[in-house]
Amino acid sequence: MSLPILDLNNVLAPALAEGGLDPARLEVGGDLQRRFADAHEVFERRRAAGDLGFLDLPFDRETAGRVAEVAESFGQWFEDVVVLGIGGSGLGAVALREALLVPAWNERSDEVREYHPRLHVVDNPDPRTVHALFERIDPRRALFVVISKSGSTAETMALYLVARARVAAVVEAEQVRGHFLFVTDPERGALRTLAEAEGIPTLPVPANVGGRFSVLSSVGLLPAAVCGIDIDELLAGAAAMVEACRGTDLRANPAAALATVLWAADTELDLPIHVLMAYADRLRAFTLWFQQLWAESLGKVRGDGHVGPTPLPAVGATDQHAQVQLFMEGPRDKIVVFLAVDGSGVEVEVPDLHPDVETMAYLGGAGLGTLLDAERRATTEALRLRSRPSITLEVGSADARSFGALIMLFEIATVYAGGLYGVDPLDQPGVELGKRLTYALMGRHGYEAPDVPEVDERWRIGGTSG
Amino acid sequence: MSLPILDLNNVLAPALAEGGLDPARLEVGGDLQRRFADAHEVFERRRAAGDLGFLDLPFDRETAGRVAEVAESFGQWFEDVVVLGIGGSGLGAVALREALLVPAWNERSDEVREYHPRLHVVDNPDPRTVHALFERIDPRRALFVVISKSGSTAETMALYLVARARVAAVVEAEQVRGHFLFVTDPERGALRTLAEAEGIPTLPVPANVGGRFSVLSSVGLLPAAVCGIDIDELLAGAAAMVEACRGTDLRANPAAALATVLWAADTELDLPIHVLMAYADRLRAFTLWFQQLWAESLGKVRGDGHVGPTPLPAVGATDQHAQVQLFMEGPRDKIVVFLAVDGSGVEVEVPDLHPDVETMAYLGGAGLGTLLDAERRATTEALRLRSRPSITLEVGSADARSFGALIMLFEIATVYAGGLYGVDPLDQPGVELGKRLTYALMGRHGYEAPDVPEVDERWRIGGTSG
Repeated sequence: MSLPILDLNNVLAPALAEGGLDPARLEVGGDLQRRFADAHEVFERRRAAGDLGFLDLPFDRETAGRVAEVAESFGQWFEDVVVLGIGGSGLGAVALREALLVPAWNERSDEVREYHPRLHVVDNPDPRTVHALFERIDPRRALFVVISKSGSTAETMALYLVARARVAAVVEAEQVRGHFLFVTDPERGALRTLAEAEGIPTLPVPANVGGRFSVLSSVGLLPAAVCGIDIDELLAGAAAMVEACRGTDLRANPAAALATVLWAADTELDLPIHVLMAYADRLRAFTLWFQQLWAESLGKVRGDGHVGPTPLPAVGATDQHAQVQLFMEGPRDKIVVFLAVDGSGVEVEVPDLHPDVETMAYLGGAGLGTLLDAERRATTEALRLRSRPSITLEVGSADARSFGALIMLFEIATVYAGGLYGVDPLDQPGVELGKRLTYALMGRHGYEAPDVPEVDERWRIGGTSG
Repeated sequence: MSLPILDLNNVLAPALAEGGLDPARLEVGGDLQRRFADAHEVFERRRAAGDLGFLDLPFDRETAGRVAEVAESFGQWFEDVVVLGIGGSGLGAVALREALLVPAWNERSDEVREYHPRLHVVDNPDPRTVHALFERIDPRRALFVVISKSGSTAETMALYLVARARVAAVVEAEQVRGHFLFVTDPERGALRTLAEAEGIPTLPVPANVGGRFSVLSSVGLLPAAVCGIDIDELLAGAAAMVEACRGTDLRANPAAALATVLWAADTELDLPIHVLMAYADRLRAFTLWFQQLWAESLGKVRGDGHVGPTPLPAVGATDQHAQVQLFMEGPRDKIVVFLAVDGSGVEVEVPDLHPDVETMAYLGGAGLGTLLDAERRATTEALRLRSRPSITLEVGSADARSFGALIMLFEIATVYAGGLYGVDPLDQPGVELGKRLTYALMGRHGYEAPDVPEVDERWRIGGTSG
């Protein structure tokens, strides 16, 4: 099979007039190669300690089999599957739906969906969104997949309570549990306890797989499988990428090359903003998945300082008319990773209807995919001519197999990057304070209301019309 | 009426233990107030020169009347309205649809939509997206709104050609023109010429209104009106904001306060990343509209340097589980503008189903909107406790009137910010090179193919499985 190709040419000194990396530094024996070797050692140590559960997911046939079984038993009964999960519990399912199902899945007929259910992901306790969801689904024909490893995520618990009451209002008491599936820690937490007490079916998130690394666990696989995505192919691609990312030679390990170049871009070339720009609508959601992975893993306190790049999602060609002006002429603080997709599966011909109109004639006879690819190459080249570095990741056809490989590439690169930055890529201590303050404001037992300073009304500006 | 309120407390020294702005600097006579006065002068000069056409749009009753008329005459005939437009020609329509129509508009029944058409915005020449669109709409019942001021935007022209052939394949030749509406320059360009030759209906974009400032022109008003949005209310809110943003007193001019504080955050406090974090799903698309406005207006060459902040869209509470770890613990390079919405129109109660489960009990009896608002306040406070500055913009109910005011607030602030940064906020010279290279790659007459350097295959990494 063919795996993604990482093209580094446009980040290297030969291609960039100024500010490029010297290729010798990436070769065997080069200083970046040696620097990576340290990060690789950290990675191998954590793998040996059993911390990197996400690496095992592609090889876990038992879970995949159980997911397929559950998906099949549920899929045929329900018109709507509603994932209740936030952060890593929701982003992966959306990325899979957008990349691998026909576009606008939830707007399509039963025939087009081949009688698979619609897939909604509610990742915000926004009353307007939730109200509108229940206006258009029938709880009697809906399955709610509640995803929270800890069983304590406030937003998800609130959404679960709402959904449960809606189901209970329209089905017999003993049928309520059949409308819920909990994806949670195999042993602990409130959802686990509840499931056992009430006989609600569950799927596990392994203890050593954190939320943002969980898309290839039941968290992402169940929603995917229930909509007919071939999870075996997804896992096969991921497995191949695990095999491909080994050793310390940057030229033989794409995740290593990706992590090292992005780290060096931030810490040496002063390019702390890492743009992921996908030239395909289907990968728009993937860029948001990446944003969480990269931001939450690497944005950390280190010693008495603060480190971490800022990931910035973008889509081509659309963002050429939104963000590219800034990328071209704004401060030199960005490196762009382009995602190039081989879209040969679908092409739409541009007809030659106005051969006499200069702004249209050259488009006639081409395909939209050809145009989109030309836009990507032109943008890459325009940035290069201004000595603005980029990496191109050639994804292939973006089918389940290559998408699985893409996911794993970024997951491994993230842990490598953690080693390079000298931070723990698996924790997220910075969100605890906000959680505690939320509990306090909501009156949860044992949390004291914060002592917020008085608002000075003089600095509340506006509010009345002229 | 009530306009948005800009709360600056959490960017000022009293609230922040370190790195806050001294409030005296913002007072009358303070240095930031004086600095803004210069930008205000630039603004007034450009307004007098007739460059700031967007300021006149809320008062242009004639265009609004014509839009309403066209919308009414078309709306009843079509099931689907398809906007073909990229950048400023597409983002505004999406922002309006998401903010002001019922959620998931295109998935709703005719009854819920009150027999208004579905609204699709195709802002990318992605063949997969376009193919899927034509799988689910009937061109005989579809109106294509082609938006390009210049009539030369490659992506939009290509999409127009595709749409035209699809329509021509299923209706009589003389009916084709009735399925198109061109929104373009009132005098020039290929679409104008074509419209006149063929009798295709048009709506104008005033010559002094650029793409990213065009949402309150026909560009955004027509798609809005055709779906039943009250464009008079939208314009009334915008008009009130124009009136409210006058003079050089930062405490009496919310756009001035917003622009000056964000500019100072970037250039003085070293916070070049400007996060716009909306606590409402309905404003998610608005944050992308803002991103284009801020990035393309301010990311510019100045002298022999480069300036401009990087806008970063976010949504709460969702991004608390994705980006907030980085905002809390990563480098101190961000200021967050929170959008707080008064969601009292819709509330969803969280039922008290599990009073014995500690992670759920405290949520019972609250509303989702209450929870969402608590999350916003908690995140604001958590950032403050770490001396990370934020601004809160209280939007009100986010109805058409307050949304119009919000749009105008940011548009005026953007031109003020251009004055503060010392750049022209109305141009986008940095995207010309990419356009020319695209033309060349597509073989457009008069554009020479670029001399792209050879790719060194040694730096194309990966590609085969292990």
